[in-house]
Amino acid sequence: MRPTRLGIIGLGAIGGSLGRQAKRAGIPTVLGWSPEPAERVRAVQEGALDDAPARPEEVAARVELLVLAAPPAANLALLDRLHARLAAGAIMTDTGSVKRGIVARAETLRLAERFAGSHPLAGTHKSGFDASRGELFTNAIVYITPARGGEGVAREIAHFWESVCHAVAVTLPAATHDAQLAVSSHLPQVVASLLAHFLAAHLPPGAELGPGAKDTTRLAASEPQLWTEILLLNRDQVLPALRALEEPLGALERALEAGDAKRVTEWLATAAAWRRRVET
Amino acid sequence: MRPTRLGIIGLGAIGGSLGRQAKRAGIPTVLGWSPEPAERVRAVQEGALDDAPARPEEVAARVELLVLAAPPAANLALLDRLHARLAAGAIMTDTGSVKRGIVARAETLRLAERFAGSHPLAGTHKSGFDASRGELFTNAIVYITPARGGEGVAREIAHFWESVCHAVAVTLPAATHDAQLAVSSHLPQVVASLLAHFLAAHLPPGAELGPGAKDTTRLAASEPQLWTEILLLNRDQVLPALRALEEPLGALERALEAGDAKRVTEWLATAAAWRRRVET
Repeated sequence: MRPTRLGIIGLGAIGGSLGRQAKRAGIPTVLGWSPEPAERVRAVQEGALDDAPARPEEVAARVELLVLAAPPAANLALLDRLHARLAAGAIMTDTGSVKRGIVARAETLRLAERFAGSHPLAGTHKSGFDASRGELFTNAIVYITPARGGEGVAREIAHFWESVCHAVAVTLPAATHDAQLAVSSHLPQVVASLLAHFLAAHLPPGAELGPGAKDTTRLAASEPQLWTEILLLNRDQVLPALRALEEPLGALERALEAGDAKRVTEWLATAAAWRRRVET
Repeated sequence: MRPTRLGIIGLGAIGGSLGRQAKRAGIPTVLGWSPEPAERVRAVQEGALDDAPARPEEVAARVELLVLAAPPAANLALLDRLHARLAAGAIMTDTGSVKRGIVARAETLRLAERFAGSHPLAGTHKSGFDASRGELFTNAIVYITPARGGEGVAREIAHFWESVCHAVAVTLPAATHDAQLAVSSHLPQVVASLLAHFLAAHLPPGAELGPGAKDTTRLAASEPQLWTEILLLNRDQVLPALRALEEPLGALERALEAGDAKRVTEWLATAAAWRRRVET
């Protein structure tokens, strides 16, 4: 679908960028809401929104597609609060990084034909409306996770991301999504934070970091509260992945203890071969 | 010092860049050597060197400053092989990432007044002459590690990096350097490789990586043989650091197991506060 009236709840990096990109794409009316009045005013001033009513219900009632772009726990509460305020025929999605919980909630609320999850793989370690930009979703992957029996609305939402935001939609079950993202996204976040946590305690005063150490820890600057929600919502997937890190870590430690250059090189080469196949 | 004739042994990312930058800075004669004849020819063709003799002894005999820019183990062998071939009054340095070994070797060879270690914090995950560029050292930190009694030559080499390469020289004992770099550089390399090693085995086929996961693993593409040497030369410092990672990792795992949002947020916030203070 290509809505005439789009609503966005939450005006951070994702919601703000969506407003900017929808206006650039020519969506006639984009309404938005944030709990922070100053953010609502700025989003309108900067042309990311046409209007920002004082209450999210006013947005829900006036749009054809409502996008929940708050943190995951807030999105769950917003789904509860707003689904009955949607205009007739309107549909909903969210943009959270964990999908089983909100898809299950939509099923419980009998919204399977009006809601499908979305997760644009376009987050940054920066947050807030200041981090929003007009081309954030262009060429980005957006995962679409249908509720049971919701393939039709999932196709409409996939088409929205592709036609309005020039993203690449990939539809998959919420459980598959969460298992995959635990490895591809949530674990990298934890590893970057783990290194930063260690460096915060152990880096000698005045020691300089090279560009590689800065890259490796960049994600650690991400918003702690948002990531607490993500990690807890997906902890049944994240915890086994974290524990599985111990095996290759132990293998390297043993090779170093033994002074075994061949095994150290093989270990590093496994990592290098994989990384060299990944685009920069 | 600002040499009239500079020699560089090893024409990879570091040695090649040094040649390019020295020629740009107007050093009249830059000679170099690499074990690969094709690399010697290219370095001359691209203006990084004035000449590339067939044997490193020919470089050593003709320069005022000789820089060993091979991998660490090769630099040790080159120090043994070339120090007696240096012209009268000529001085030497190296560019390796671990300093105790080569400084101790220089002391054993009674070169304390003719050799000081260097370590430019300007490596990349790319390697070889193709990765060299003309401004690699501008504004980069270069650590200088004197041998016992070698403060004079260390000052000359520090002045070389600053005046010719526009780098920032920081002089410190080799042991302090190695302890600091184990934390600031060697551990980040291992953590990036650890994540890549894990992803190589566990990333579901077709799963996409976001920009954050790419940043976090970028260093893993570094040259495995070079890093094997670095990790083994500095393993007495690297291994305790690796083992110390287990403490914050365990703390996060326990907080996640307990579903303790406050503790997870505090853990992430410690990492975020540190990373937000680091320049991008």
